[in-house]
Amino acid sequence: MLPRSIAARSTRFSSAPQLQRLSTRCPRTHSLLLPSRIYHSRSSFIAGAKTHKAARWRLPQPATKRSLTTKPLPSTQSRFVRFCYRSAAYCGSVVLITGAVITAFFIYDATTYKNDPSNEEITVSELALHPRRGGPKNLPIASVLVDDDDQEGREMQTQKYKPKLVILGTGWGSVALLKGLNPDDYHITVVSPSNYFLFTPMLPSATVGTLELRSLVEPVRRIITRVKGHFLKAQAEDVDFSEKLVEVSALGPNGEKQHFYLPYDKLVIGVGSITNPHGVQGLENCHFLKDVSDARKIRNTVIRNLEAACLPTTSDEERKRLLSFVISGGGPTGVEFAAELFDMLNEDLCNYFPKILRSEISVHVIQSRGHILNTYDEALSRYAEARFAHDHVDVLTNSRVKEVQPDKILFTQKDEETGKIVTKELPMGFCLWSTGVSQTEFCQKLAKKLDGQNNKHALETDSHLRLIGAPLGDVYAIGDCSTVQNNVSDHILTFLRTLAWEKGKDPQQMEISYKDWRSVAKRVKQRFPQASDHLRRLDRLFEQYDKDKSGKLDFGELHELLHQIDSKLTSLPATAQRAHQQGQYLARKLNKIAHAAPGMRLNEMDYGDLDEAVYKAFEYKHLGSLAYIGNAAVFDINGLNFSGGLLAVYLWRSVYFAQSVSFRTRVLMAMDWTKRALFGRGEYTTCVYRSNILTAPHRHDELLDKTQQP
Amino acid sequence: MLPRSIAARSTRFSSAPQLQRLSTRCPRTHSLLLPSRIYHSRSSFIAGAKTHKAARWRLPQPATKRSLTTKPLPSTQSRFVRFCYRSAAYCGSVVLITGAVITAFFIYDATTYKNDPSNEEITVSELALHPRRGGPKNLPIASVLVDDDDQEGREMQTQKYKPKLVILGTGWGSVALLKGLNPDDYHITVVSPSNYFLFTPMLPSATVGTLELRSLVEPVRRIITRVKGHFLKAQAEDVDFSEKLVEVSALGPNGEKQHFYLPYDKLVIGVGSITNPHGVQGLENCHFLKDVSDARKIRNTVIRNLEAACLPTTSDEERKRLLSFVISGGGPTGVEFAAELFDMLNEDLCNYFPKILRSEISVHVIQSRGHILNTYDEALSRYAEARFAHDHVDVLTNSRVKEVQPDKILFTQKDEETGKIVTKELPMGFCLWSTGVSQTEFCQKLAKKLDGQNNKHALETDSHLRLIGAPLGDVYAIGDCSTVQNNVSDHILTFLRTLAWEKGKDPQQMEISYKDWRSVAKRVKQRFPQASDHLRRLDRLFEQYDKDKSGKLDFGELHELLHQIDSKLTSLPATAQRAHQQGQYLARKLNKIAHAAPGMRLNEMDYGDLDEAVYKAFEYKHLGSLAYIGNAAVFDINGLNFSGGLLAVYLWRSVYFAQSVSFRTRVLMAMDWTKRALFGRGEYTTCVYRSNILTAPHRHDELLDKTQQP
Ligand SMILES: Cc1cc2nc3c(=O)[nH]c(=O)nc-3n(C[C@H](O)[C@H](O)[C@H](O)COP(=O)(O)OP(=O)(O)OC[C@H]3O[C@@H](n4cnc5c(N)ncnc54)[C@H](O)[C@@H]3O)c2cc1C
Ligand SMILES: Cc1cc2nc3c(=O)[nH]c(=O)nc-3n(C[C@H](O)[C@H](O)[C@H](O)COP(=O)(O)OP(=O)(O)OC[C@H]3O[C@@H](n4cnc5c(N)ncnc54)[C@H](O)[C@@H]3O)c2cc1C
Repeated sequence: MLPRSIAARSTRFSSAPQLQRLSTRCPRTHSLLLPSRIYHSRSSFIAGAKTHKAARWRLPQPATKRSLTTKPLPSTQSRFVRFCYRSAAYCGSVVLITGAVITAFFIYDATTYKNDPSNEEITVSELALHPRRGGPKNLPIASVLVDDDDQEGREMQTQKYKPKLVILGTGWGSVALLKGLNPDDYHITVVSPSNYFLFTPMLPSATVGTLELRSLVEPVRRIITRVKGHFLKAQAEDVDFSEKLVEVSALGPNGEKQHFYLPYDKLVIGVGSITNPHGVQGLENCHFLKDVSDARKIRNTVIRNLEAACLPTTSDEERKRLLSFVISGGGPTGVEFAAELFDMLNEDLCNYFPKILRSEISVHVIQSRGHILNTYDEALSRYAEARFAHDHVDVLTNSRVKEVQPDKILFTQKDEETGKIVTKELPMGFCLWSTGVSQTEFCQKLAKKLDGQNNKHALETDSHLRLIGAPLGDVYAIGDCSTVQNNVSDHILTFLRTLAWEKGKDPQQMEISYKDWRSVAKRVKQRFPQASDHLRRLDRLFEQYDKDKSGKLDFGELHELLHQIDSKLTSLPATAQRAHQQGQYLARKLNKIAHAAPGMRLNEMDYGDLDEAVYKAFEYKHLGSLAYIGNAAVFDINGLNFSGGLLAVYLWRSVYFAQSVSFRTRVLMAMDWTKRALFGRGEYTTCVYRSNILTAPHRHDELLDKTQQP
Repeated sequence: MLPRSIAARSTRFSSAPQLQRLSTRCPRTHSLLLPSRIYHSRSSFIAGAKTHKAARWRLPQPATKRSLTTKPLPSTQSRFVRFCYRSAAYCGSVVLITGAVITAFFIYDATTYKNDPSNEEITVSELALHPRRGGPKNLPIASVLVDDDDQEGREMQTQKYKPKLVILGTGWGSVALLKGLNPDDYHITVVSPSNYFLFTPMLPSATVGTLELRSLVEPVRRIITRVKGHFLKAQAEDVDFSEKLVEVSALGPNGEKQHFYLPYDKLVIGVGSITNPHGVQGLENCHFLKDVSDARKIRNTVIRNLEAACLPTTSDEERKRLLSFVISGGGPTGVEFAAELFDMLNEDLCNYFPKILRSEISVHVIQSRGHILNTYDEALSRYAEARFAHDHVDVLTNSRVKEVQPDKILFTQKDEETGKIVTKELPMGFCLWSTGVSQTEFCQKLAKKLDGQNNKHALETDSHLRLIGAPLGDVYAIGDCSTVQNNVSDHILTFLRTLAWEKGKDPQQMEISYKDWRSVAKRVKQRFPQASDHLRRLDRLFEQYDKDKSGKLDFGELHELLHQIDSKLTSLPATAQRAHQQGQYLARKLNKIAHAAPGMRLNEMDYGDLDEAVYKAFEYKHLGSLAYIGNAAVFDINGLNFSGGLLAVYLWRSVYFAQSVSFRTRVLMAMDWTKRALFGRGEYTTCVYRSNILTAPHRHDELLDKTQQP
């Protein structure tokens, strides 16, 4: 609708006799596109305004009506009035559109409420309700699950007779695998003690309340619906490779552990890692940061310390100790946590807590190497150190923690100049232990059982990710719990030896021409894609190792060449990136195998080499590293370094935003960042340490919280 | 910007010689408000289009420039084109505005990051760091706090010498008080074991994940900044009324309890209540719902049961038991929780869990009265019951819980027809105990110490909310922990007796005329506003109780009359509404007292009656009750009943939305509801029961969660 005064003024002309005169005298003026500069003058506007009132009285009705039609856009002489008209129209339309969106939302929202409880017929196989017993320990064998017969277009039933794929763990590796699998190829069962996937890179942010913990998790049951999988909240205890059974334990209905077997045709191990204790004593006085519950505990301890520091009974010395936050480990996790903690203390805290706290807070990072973020480019770790220095975050390099006591931490520090090692102590109220990873008990158990497992830190796989020592093609391992063997020389030499024996030759006498060397190199590249980088100039390598310049490599020379390559290959990093790539790779391969398998079986081909037959070996592609360091961020992407302030932070956020696991978590993250901007972190609001005595009437004196140890 | 074709067409006129002619021949056409209907014709538009191209070649530059000016709005003859133009303009502006809003947000967001740690000088009084000891138990006395001297315009310092107001608790009552107090009248210290205010009415929703727990809490430190108050996370243990000291205990730096005194000039007790055990055994097997941590525990237990029900080792019988959810108590909290639980199980669950779970789930409400929601209008409780019947929520009325065992609940049920009482048992996997409130230990201690405290369930106050038995005007009690004495007859008779004695008369002989009666009634109304309703028709009452029709009431008759009024007065409900009103009332009174006090002291008036002198007695105004019952809601607002489906739910939400404590919580709630609509409740994602063994390397076998008892 037009603003009233404009509508009224237009009346003046429609009723004035001049108007008719004008229309006949200048027939072409009807085009209202006349350039305004020429036709406008301030006086005419005033004149219009003067006649305005009288006109309204004469003919008010038509004006009002006309303003609602799709008649030509109204025109006035005043730029201001036109501007107003436009603004009003835009404003109105924004309101209308917003209104429409809100209405649509409510209508949509209403459809999300279900009114009638569904009352379908449920069929459950007898075997699912009463599983038979068996296996080496005579435990129940879960060969059929309660949802194998779930209806909904009998979808589950078509899966029932497919090869059983069991996936252990719901971390980065397993979830990437789940997201890549075709829906109808396998009967998929996921086993994990955590029923959600956790977006670990954001965990340090969630710790201090920048993000909600719930925004970082995606329920596994939601992820598996696409592949019509099953989920058991349980923990793998052992694997019987010969009978193809995973021994699983779960909390039963009365809270006691119950063991049972889960049969598999293919097993994927993606159980991740645990924190490396490095043999340090007193880690029960530390916090860890691996899981949602850890983040919550850290939050609560930080708040408890701050609140305790405000009490009149707390001495000055104790206050300083309570507010001394120590982070052991200067890797990305430790650094990001230190940065987030500092932000929280610096941005949100000083507004609400007594000022004395702010001045007595200290944050320390203890790092065993010479620099923090030592896996990053040196320029970046320098930038991070400078940033921390500016923020008064205390970085202690070349320092190793010796012992953690409840109220202090003992560490040795090497003087960079003198090389002397001195033991120091640091009073602390909070310590985060974040110093690399080591193997879970389950993996240790498997490694002991299998031949060819020599790595203390992870399960070894070949470059097709098959677990070494297990029957070929039955068991795969991905992510933090695994490492890909880099035994180029062993593999090739065994291969050549076999070849030689077959030809009846003594392998030690074997001589390799440049042509042979090229085909060996091709085999290496295929089998160990990671080695390709070191096999670029085959001719140079050949020349270099052909020490006697005979034009041929003898066995010793070849051995040395391959050994050199081995030593250049580093083991894969324990990162989400690697786990994700391995999961994706395995999904692609398992999809191919599922389609190839029936044909293979018909041709009676050797099933064992199916992996190699259908798909290439796994190759890790490093995409870069990034870290958040206190209102700044550093990137190390394919050799391209970038570090900077807020802009980098936004970039850092958008990388994770894009990487985030689902549309749902993306929206939640955006909401959280908005909340942080609007209301601060709100960290100090949540305090689950209060015991429930207010509600449990019988234990009133526990109303105050007890210190909870990790 | 204008669409290109329109801009180009306008060129035609600016370059054509006609234009000059027109401008001189019709000097008044510059008013562009000419009614378009008259001047437009389809042919002229076509003509315009024809000359268009030529014009562009002749003078392209000015055209482009002109289209960016504020020249008259473009006009064409086609309604469709005009419509398109308008739409495009609106659409563009929406995009621009949205863009501007986002940009503005980012700019704002950037300002919320603080770059430089503040390095002000902090002065803290010596007495705050080393408090002197004293009081009956020779504990430290916190007469000065560490933030009393905080700078920021020396604001805190002006408070330092104001009367000390100590507020115990951070619930509905205390927060309403804090929000109503003037900033500069008192030195305010808030003491509570919880450092947040909890919006209890929404707690049942948060339990199942419809709302985030964080959206329901508001940090106390944020609330107290306005009044420049202090907060101590501690628990009141006792009060020494003669020395005006509160004994407080807090968790010290090493996690041990530390006691100290907090001196007050005025003390407000708002410590709430605890759940009423009703003497039932086995409540350790129940959950309660009073606090954030309770809600989290409930969430986890529900999920744990669902996950356990999916295990192959769980028998059919156990599965049914695990999925039997029992709610003891059919009041608003119990009913709302049952409804939310049912919603969650019905809406979100069946999509992700095996179907068999849905068909074996049962929800039971055990209610001791004949109806659920028995404090509401009967029509509403009927509606709620019908709704539950439709949803297959089992309502057991006239039933009393006898004992709760870990896996079942024993209760007695009275047959409504025969009146016989039979004992029944119900297997259950989860039990919520929500059956009314009783007194905290702290309040019991105070009640025992003071004269005139006869109520077993709450601290008694007079109608000015002053704690009975404590020195007049020193101590107030509000909210669930308190009740206002309705001793009209005692009060008036004592008053009359004193009057009689003063006049040397025997009170028993006293006779009261109608005029006297009116002044007595006036006194009653003033002192007991709650009784006003029962004192509407003074003449009728007088007639009724003047049994000997003497025209006068003798002492016995008056006593009976007042006693009757007493019996009609019910005690105030233990609701947020009441606590809120009492907090508001007390804030207003304390503000008045602060301003009156200096004058009073000058005139050496009796400080004791200041309350009555400055402000009226407290009167509770019931605004209504509402409850959410499974995609429907019931309202009982000032006698007006309303019940209905989704529309009522939205209304229900908006009531709480409006009532919500701050803009922050309001935004968070809106976000949560949006999340629910978009992604479901996400309940089954959070599971903090996983122990931290993945992170704590030394206790691997605890990886599976242990049942945690409330
Ligand atoms: C705080 C933090 C920040 C990080 N930041 C980054 C980063 O920014 N970038 C990056 O690339 N990497 C980062 N990482 C590393 C990354 O999270 C890991 O490399 C990645 O999670 C490894 O994936 P995974 O699938 O091997 O194991 P995980 O993701 O650890 O998952 C292991 C899964 O196995 C389950 N499980 C454990 N034991 C058993 C059992 N016995 N049976 C069955 N299931 C079991 C667990 O419950 C879990 O679901 C970070 C890690 C942490 C802790
Ligand atoms: C789940 C639930 C739903 C509810 N729904 C509604 C509803 O819809 N409408 C309604 O009107 N009412 C509702 N109520 C009731 C309402 O919450 C209470 O009536 C209200 O909270 C009472 O306010 P209060 O200030 O007296 O105490 P509370 O709000 O209970 O607060 C007591 C405070 O005192 C603190 N405290 C306890 N002990 C001590 C101590 N020794 N020293 C210092 N501090 C102490 C506690 O930490 C807490 O902060 C509901 C209650 C619950 C539990």
